[in-house]
Amino acid sequence: MIVIGEKINGFIPKTLAAIESGNKEYIEELASAQEQSGAHYLDICAGVNRESELDTMVWLIELAQKASSLPLCLDSSSPTVLLEVMKRVQRPGMLNSVSLEEEEGVSKCSLVFPVIAHTDWKIVALTVGPGGIPKTPQDKAAVAGRMIEQAEEAGIVQERIFIDLVVTTLATQQDSLQNFCEALKLVKKQYPRVHFTSGVSNISFGMPYRKAINQQFLALAMEAGMDCAILDPLSSGMQSTLFATSALLGKDEFCMEYLQAYRKGFFGAEPQDR
Amino acid sequence: MIVIGEKINGFIPKTLAAIESGNKEYIEELASAQEQSGAHYLDICAGVNRESELDTMVWLIELAQKASSLPLCLDSSSPTVLLEVMKRVQRPGMLNSVSLEEEEGVSKCSLVFPVIAHTDWKIVALTVGPGGIPKTPQDKAAVAGRMIEQAEEAGIVQERIFIDLVVTTLATQQDSLQNFCEALKLVKKQYPRVHFTSGVSNISFGMPYRKAINQQFLALAMEAGMDCAILDPLSSGMQSTLFATSALLGKDEFCMEYLQAYRKGFFGAEPQDR
Repeated sequence: MIVIGEKINGFIPKTLAAIESGNKEYIEELASAQEQSGAHYLDICAGVNRESELDTMVWLIELAQKASSLPLCLDSSSPTVLLEVMKRVQRPGMLNSVSLEEEEGVSKCSLVFPVIAHTDWKIVALTVGPGGIPKTPQDKAAVAGRMIEQAEEAGIVQERIFIDLVVTTLATQQDSLQNFCEALKLVKKQYPRVHFTSGVSNISFGMPYRKAINQQFLALAMEAGMDCAILDPLSSGMQSTLFATSALLGKDEFCMEYLQAYRKGFFGAEPQDR
Repeated sequence: MIVIGEKINGFIPKTLAAIESGNKEYIEELASAQEQSGAHYLDICAGVNRESELDTMVWLIELAQKASSLPLCLDSSSPTVLLEVMKRVQRPGMLNSVSLEEEEGVSKCSLVFPVIAHTDWKIVALTVGPGGIPKTPQDKAAVAGRMIEQAEEAGIVQERIFIDLVVTTLATQQDSLQNFCEALKLVKKQYPRVHFTSGVSNISFGMPYRKAINQQFLALAMEAGMDCAILDPLSSGMQSTLFATSALLGKDEFCMEYLQAYRKGFFGAEPQDR
């Protein structure tokens, strides 16, 4: 399971406060703590208005690279910002995200794929078409398929593609998980070597005790084949869910990774249930 | 999801201490607390040596019935004990368990099925054959099938049968969950109206932070079709896993049960993650 640490994101109030007050230590601590908690990438999202996005991203990138040696997952809805800030990054990471959404007749995929084709950068491809987010699993799979084929034509192998099937909110769409899993299985069947990722917390908007929904979404999506997630590696509950599920699904020989994660304190520190 | 509260069980050290010291209040409190936490049945297991099992069961049954109006799940490996103590129970519940294990050439099923045939009692049927616990999903399904057909011949409809596929320990069998789920799907395909139950904690013997493994086993087994579990309804983690998974699987319209369980305090009371 590939973990993208989600904490360096201006949409998170505490991180936004650190950005606005120029609190470098806080950002560096987020980078370092997520690395120590086993993250494989650090998401970097400015989450502020467009005018300052580029400057904020560059500031965050420099701090993250100072405090951690992890590759970065550059997170912006603007292909222009992504292509600009990737120049400031020391080692190839992930661009998050592109889609078939068009601006002035050109899709985000068409802007980004040629630039990263002959690099080691990986790409998160969000299943959003020119007409918005598809509703059915079949339509989501069709959009995913179009992006994967366009990427392959540009010279990007399936192993570098992370499909994000756009998790909808359970509170407003009761079949959200089932829709996600069905779409995933359709794509995986046709393109067996692509990865699947997702922000885990979208599922639980509007619900109380969101972490329970987030954790079980993670487990059930992993069962369906999701092999990457953007999540909080500092959450004991999320980590225990991840390692326990991986072991139960037979993907952790002799439970060695579970045992190691426990020994490192990734989970297990909270008080016992009554 | 049908919940059998597991707390009144002499194999649990605190419950055993209450049994040995004759602490009636403790047993009554366990019965009452589990009912308030949404359990549908109360498991009653003496867990002591054979000589005193009958007396202990009767004592526990009286206390449980005094403190709670829930039906009981009488839990003993002895058909003789089950058939004797069921006479002391006010309303039909569940007998846990029978199997194809033989004593003096007669299986537990053959002893119990005729007695309960024309009653409202439900039955937990453990997939253990005359030769022990089958290893493959196919063999487990075959044993389950033999018991279901024997029950149906005796006049017990599928809806009254709860198949327990004998969860093995993850630490010693890496494909334990997969084996369980595959067996479940085989049985469900052939006998779509039977229920499936399991003790949740067997999976995690020998592992640290067992509750993570137990919770994810519950979620993944529910996804495969398990619709009943013997678990601790006083565990916030177990309850949140149960209700979140049920909602994610589309079995909780408008998440009403999740919201209600949260409001009742079944989960959500523990401190936040760091």
